[in-house]
Amino acid sequence: MDFEFLKKLIVPADTRIVLLIMDGLGGLPREPGGKTELEAAHTPNLDALAIQSSLGLTIPVAPGITPGSGPGHLAIFGYDPLQYEIGRGALEALGVDFELGPDDLAARGNFCTLDADGLIVDRRAGRIGTEITRELIESLNTIKIEGVEVTTRTIKEHRFAFVMHGANLDDSLTEMDPQKTGIAPNPVKPLRKEAERTAALVNEYAEKARNLLADKHPANAIMLRGFAKCPLLPTYSEIFGLKAAAIAVNGMYKGVARLAGMQVLPVDGVTLDAEFSALEKYWNDYDFFFLHVKQTDSAGEDGGFDLKVRVIEEVDALIPRLMALNPDVVIVGGDHSSPAILKTHSWHPVPTLLYSKLVRPDGITEFGERACLKGSLGILPAKDIMPIALANAGRITKWSA
Amino acid sequence: MDFEFLKKLIVPADTRIVLLIMDGLGGLPREPGGKTELEAAHTPNLDALAIQSSLGLTIPVAPGITPGSGPGHLAIFGYDPLQYEIGRGALEALGVDFELGPDDLAARGNFCTLDADGLIVDRRAGRIGTEITRELIESLNTIKIEGVEVTTRTIKEHRFAFVMHGANLDDSLTEMDPQKTGIAPNPVKPLRKEAERTAALVNEYAEKARNLLADKHPANAIMLRGFAKCPLLPTYSEIFGLKAAAIAVNGMYKGVARLAGMQVLPVDGVTLDAEFSALEKYWNDYDFFFLHVKQTDSAGEDGGFDLKVRVIEEVDALIPRLMALNPDVVIVGGDHSSPAILKTHSWHPVPTLLYSKLVRPDGITEFGERACLKGSLGILPAKDIMPIALANAGRITKWSA
Repeated sequence: MDFEFLKKLIVPADTRIVLLIMDGLGGLPREPGGKTELEAAHTPNLDALAIQSSLGLTIPVAPGITPGSGPGHLAIFGYDPLQYEIGRGALEALGVDFELGPDDLAARGNFCTLDADGLIVDRRAGRIGTEITRELIESLNTIKIEGVEVTTRTIKEHRFAFVMHGANLDDSLTEMDPQKTGIAPNPVKPLRKEAERTAALVNEYAEKARNLLADKHPANAIMLRGFAKCPLLPTYSEIFGLKAAAIAVNGMYKGVARLAGMQVLPVDGVTLDAEFSALEKYWNDYDFFFLHVKQTDSAGEDGGFDLKVRVIEEVDALIPRLMALNPDVVIVGGDHSSPAILKTHSWHPVPTLLYSKLVRPDGITEFGERACLKGSLGILPAKDIMPIALANAGRITKWSA
Repeated sequence: MDFEFLKKLIVPADTRIVLLIMDGLGGLPREPGGKTELEAAHTPNLDALAIQSSLGLTIPVAPGITPGSGPGHLAIFGYDPLQYEIGRGALEALGVDFELGPDDLAARGNFCTLDADGLIVDRRAGRIGTEITRELIESLNTIKIEGVEVTTRTIKEHRFAFVMHGANLDDSLTEMDPQKTGIAPNPVKPLRKEAERTAALVNEYAEKARNLLADKHPANAIMLRGFAKCPLLPTYSEIFGLKAAAIAVNGMYKGVARLAGMQVLPVDGVTLDAEFSALEKYWNDYDFFFLHVKQTDSAGEDGGFDLKVRVIEEVDALIPRLMALNPDVVIVGGDHSSPAILKTHSWHPVPTLLYSKLVRPDGITEFGERACLKGSLGILPAKDIMPIALANAGRITKWSA
């Protein structure tokens, strides 16, 4: 369903939708015949909610495809992640809280070591510490380039995010890192005519950086790659008529939410409790809330089955605070699966619960992967969840007579 | 999901996938309230495999569409059968083991009877016996046409396959058979400018055939129809990074597998046992095996409910030999349904089992149509099975960050 069609059917309503995303929620049993993390968790509140809800499983991108967090979130936000692709450089920049607009070109940057002849000795500058990178970044940010403004921010170790701000920048550029040592970094080349000026600007920057870093061995040069402008997403306001807010602690999720036109709310701390407090505090000011729980994914990626179970139980314990706000629609789901036994994201469909007073309740007494399989949402593309949520919130009118 | 997207995510892995296709597997109950062929079959090995698998039902082409074997196989191989259509002539030629390349134009041929005025008396030449056709085909294959090479092969009774090999042939041609008697066969006409030369070549061939057959009454002429070049499929190697092999006895299945870039393996005989022996023999040489079981479909098309049950049980008995090879992923499914009570292909979704150590097992204790309905693959397009299999085989990497 395209947004142009949907937009025409959107009507206002005094209703509130909460999209509670437990990152990497989907799991796998630890042993044959065993339970997944979500199935193993003791979740009396989610189970009670399940009875009044429609359950199902979402496919973030396509069958068999394991998404990163960028496309995973775009999908559950209602966007086709194959249509709106966020490039690597942009994701990295969003991750360190850059607010990217249409005039920003982002890239992934790293310090490297060149020898006296300008040949690469170490592509990662000996993985210098984050603190050293922070100092070097301060110097980099003094570089001036005519017609544009460049800002860099430390990520971790030798890595940083690079954002060039200016009119008519183009991200069709080759990368600088030749992926081997003993040769010079590649100058950036334009992949189409429109990118010629941008290539020249980036190369000028890299040269100035090299001059500036000449005596900073081992970090005496930089390389840039993954050049990307952000896709211009139609916003939640435009397509769904929603005044939307995001509650997240980590940069990338805030960034992707901002792309969707959500207002990122301040959170007083990094705990789940702090996130739920933000939800309560701003409850009357918005009609859509995306609340992001990072810890489920972190536990899954670390192989922490029991930890992931515990995080899910902590979220469960906070559900009464959410329900006390009397939301009209609540979606509990994930952006992808991160089974602890795989220690990484995976392609498995994600258990999802959609509560509202208007759903045809499945009467399933448990929120878990295999329980969701019996649910009335079926196995559906993640991007289809938002229209169903909007309908349940009284925000989509009848089409045609 | 298009192949260009998928290709970029394919990574190598030392894993093996087996696609075991029981042709026409899906069935219907013989009597109200009864079981389908698969449900009626005693399949302890498939049932044991089901417990560790994801189950579902595949739709080969689209809801309500009954596919032939060509599109049925393309779909379960991962191709969109609506995008890659194999014309009738090409399918007939593949069925008698022609290896069709981009310079081959295929057609369905048949002998017919003309009267002294060249008008059709019998469109099928009195359905002459296959042996007579074999002799006539030998004469036809002596015909020379400047610039191209034509080979024909007997199919059955009055029917044969026709393949013209040469550069720049075009299959946009009308058919020769007017579908009635008392008038002359239609000369082939080009449907577009690029096909003019091909039309002339085909007509030249048909005339030479008529001269050659003048005294062979009742088979004193030929008619050609269903002109088709093969679609150029992106191969399994190109799109999936798989070194793929096919184990099949019948020509058409070998032919379609070849189009997908699979190596057709020699089978010592025509039995299921011989096919599984080929699988064992070549196990270390490939990372994907398509194993085709024809007998389920033949039984279904003959209305042999009990025979189809027996064939399924024979396949079940061979499953331990397959599992002894320790495959990473096993798909057991079909290219379409062939319910014995219908005596033909049908549109019903096809029961499918996907085993791997990485699936989220459904814990369903039976492999059958209605059991599969509860499975986590859901009801899905057949072409989506391969990406899921590849993911389970560790052959698709994460998309984006």
